[in-house]
Amino acid sequence: MIDEKFKDLAVLAIDLVEGIKRTGIRIVGLRDRYCKLLMPIDGNTNHVGMMYAGSLFTIGELPGGLIVLASYGLGTYVPIVKEVNVRFLAPAKTDVTLELAWSREEADALEKAALENGKTDFELEMEIRDAAGEVVSVVNGTWQMRPMPKEGENPFA
Amino acid sequence: MIDEKFKDLAVLAIDLVEGIKRTGIRIVGLRDRYCKLLMPIDGNTNHVGMMYAGSLFTIGELPGGLIVLASYGLGTYVPIVKEVNVRFLAPAKTDVTLELAWSREEADALEKAALENGKTDFELEMEIRDAAGEVVSVVNGTWQMRPMPKEGENPFA
Repeated sequence: MIDEKFKDLAVLAIDLVEGIKRTGIRIVGLRDRYCKLLMPIDGNTNHVGMMYAGSLFTIGELPGGLIVLASYGLGTYVPIVKEVNVRFLAPAKTDVTLELAWSREEADALEKAALENGKTDFELEMEIRDAAGEVVSVVNGTWQMRPMPKEGENPFA
Repeated sequence: MIDEKFKDLAVLAIDLVEGIKRTGIRIVGLRDRYCKLLMPIDGNTNHVGMMYAGSLFTIGELPGGLIVLASYGLGTYVPIVKEVNVRFLAPAKTDVTLELAWSREEADALEKAALENGKTDFELEMEIRDAAGEVVSVVNGTWQMRPMPKEGENPFA
């Protein structure tokens, strides 16, 4: 389910951020312009046994960066999160998953905009589903991608 | 800074949810209708040394429940998060804090609505500030409070 060329990325995307790693989230699918994530209920429950809102945020936010890396490769574009909205629709009492896919046309259009303007914003709407397939949360957000700065450039200038 | 009567609450609010506890977040102020939280940068950085978005979500989401408990006491109302939006305005490179206060009038009006209708929604807009006082993120959300169910009642019916 994880493309051979993305094996390292699948580890790094989680291990480089302690706040992500300690949730136990797993990348269960990763290939060109596609990712699927799983957040285990174990270790992520709140005081009444449902999944903690923050763990739902984590599975909702990570794909915004991951899809950029899965679309253009490591070291090409820097993804930045600008805004994330999570609607908590139903209690999550099992592991939950989230899938995100871009078409080649979508990826190409974003890349063109980023190269022409030095950056481009993109929006995502994603569903978080429980083990029965029920949508427990809906995530809307805005991210930005910028060409990776050359040595010596300030990426946040 | 933590009112004597809220000393237990200040511990439980963090310790009962593993996903909150492992961030290292601290309640640094808690009194009637007021709370102040601190998220340490240590243990909460991302791959480029800024605070991880999920840790900013955690400090932005916790006050919605905590303010209910700090306003009406434990065991009176059940707070439920419905929706949270976080705008990431600037990189957070230090510990960050968030303060939330309700007036007595606000708290009384919400309690009246909850008792009359069996529940009431409320909205919050909060700022997360870094050590220099700069607003790094703005949090908007909707929570709900319901009178604590009596024994045998299903709180989610």
